[in-house]
Amino acid sequence: MEKIAILRWESGHVPQGLMQLEQLPGNSTNPASYPFPVKLVEVKGANTDTVILHPSQKLLEDMIQLAKELEKEGVRAITTSCGFNAIFQEALANAVKIPVFTSSLLQVPFAQALVGRDRAVGVITASASSLSEKHLRACGITDEMHPIVMGLENAPEWSKIFDHPDDSFDMDLVTEEILNVARQGVKDHPEIGAIVLECTDLPPFARRIREELDIPVFDFNSMIGHVAMALSLVKLY
Amino acid sequence: MEKIAILRWESGHVPQGLMQLEQLPGNSTNPASYPFPVKLVEVKGANTDTVILHPSQKLLEDMIQLAKELEKEGVRAITTSCGFNAIFQEALANAVKIPVFTSSLLQVPFAQALVGRDRAVGVITASASSLSEKHLRACGITDEMHPIVMGLENAPEWSKIFDHPDDSFDMDLVTEEILNVARQGVKDHPEIGAIVLECTDLPPFARRIREELDIPVFDFNSMIGHVAMALSLVKLY
Repeated sequence: MEKIAILRWESGHVPQGLMQLEQLPGNSTNPASYPFPVKLVEVKGANTDTVILHPSQKLLEDMIQLAKELEKEGVRAITTSCGFNAIFQEALANAVKIPVFTSSLLQVPFAQALVGRDRAVGVITASASSLSEKHLRACGITDEMHPIVMGLENAPEWSKIFDHPDDSFDMDLVTEEILNVARQGVKDHPEIGAIVLECTDLPPFARRIREELDIPVFDFNSMIGHVAMALSLVKLY
Repeated sequence: MEKIAILRWESGHVPQGLMQLEQLPGNSTNPASYPFPVKLVEVKGANTDTVILHPSQKLLEDMIQLAKELEKEGVRAITTSCGFNAIFQEALANAVKIPVFTSSLLQVPFAQALVGRDRAVGVITASASSLSEKHLRACGITDEMHPIVMGLENAPEWSKIFDHPDDSFDMDLVTEEILNVARQGVKDHPEIGAIVLECTDLPPFARRIREELDIPVFDFNSMIGHVAMALSLVKLY
């Protein structure tokens, strides 16, 4: 029995570029990313529009139904394949008795405590314009925490997922765009002491960001790993 | 170069029982607990009295000095071998540019978000009577989070660390006491949806608590593992 379920977008509705990124180890919907079995569960109606651009109440209700079924089946924890599900964190966590961690943003309060009040947490997101205060609040991020949000949506190759979802990524280009957003963010905001990658497609790039910028980077992978340790699915010793 | 430094108590001032627990893999001051090199750093003057019973300002100043030296040496993150150092979290994190995570209690906000507002996080601590609101606040634990704090100090074998620090533990007895506090806590408070072990000597018992009570357990080990992932010292894939 897989202990952690990952709620993912409806197949056929995932932008082509993200399908390419899914092939990389470390991507949230690539089973090779995990040293433990995960249950990938498709959510009908979940896509860029209903999760990121216009969070849908109907979708939330369907996800709650699914979460309850997964709990009944014996799943031990539930997560999701898109950090924008942050907006559904409270409702989903309240609906079941097993832990629910919808978004990598849940790591921001921890990262903020670690860097102290004079420094800031940088957040790299698929779309800064869609990341609202409501998402941040739902993940325990308070006014005092002042994360520096850095969006990818102005990067032309990356923005295909919103504007031309059937187009393929030039992987070298998109890689360079992701690294550039991190580089520019730390340059513009030298007070950044740690980075949290909101987007579940970014963990494959985390190591390069860490090593190049000499900064701790928390991502979906470090979050699911944290929970996996709490469930004895991964151990250090 | 070891990337994570662990500030530990002055040798000769660690209660005998805790010295025995240190032999167990998973204990915070046992290098065998980690699949990466750690730098164990003794802090002169750090002991049960100056950290747990009467947190000392002089000790904090010495720890700040040490943290600055470790940062200069190239250490990438700093933690400590006692969860009661929570009280020093803000001052230590503000003193250096590298991340500082003093206490396993820093995981409580994350655990609380995961279990939702109708459920609670249980905290098992070496001494509930010494764990103040100030410790909780320093770790980002707000009024709304209402953790259930369960102390070990009334368990006779465990309390030797305070009352008879030169006495040895009967290891079977102390193990049973630790498990009993967890069992009783979950029985008295069925709303507990996850447990956080404050005490850095408890990770060797985490797996049994998880398996017997069927509950996620976060501990010092899951916390240092989380940070180690953010630093690329441990990876899942």
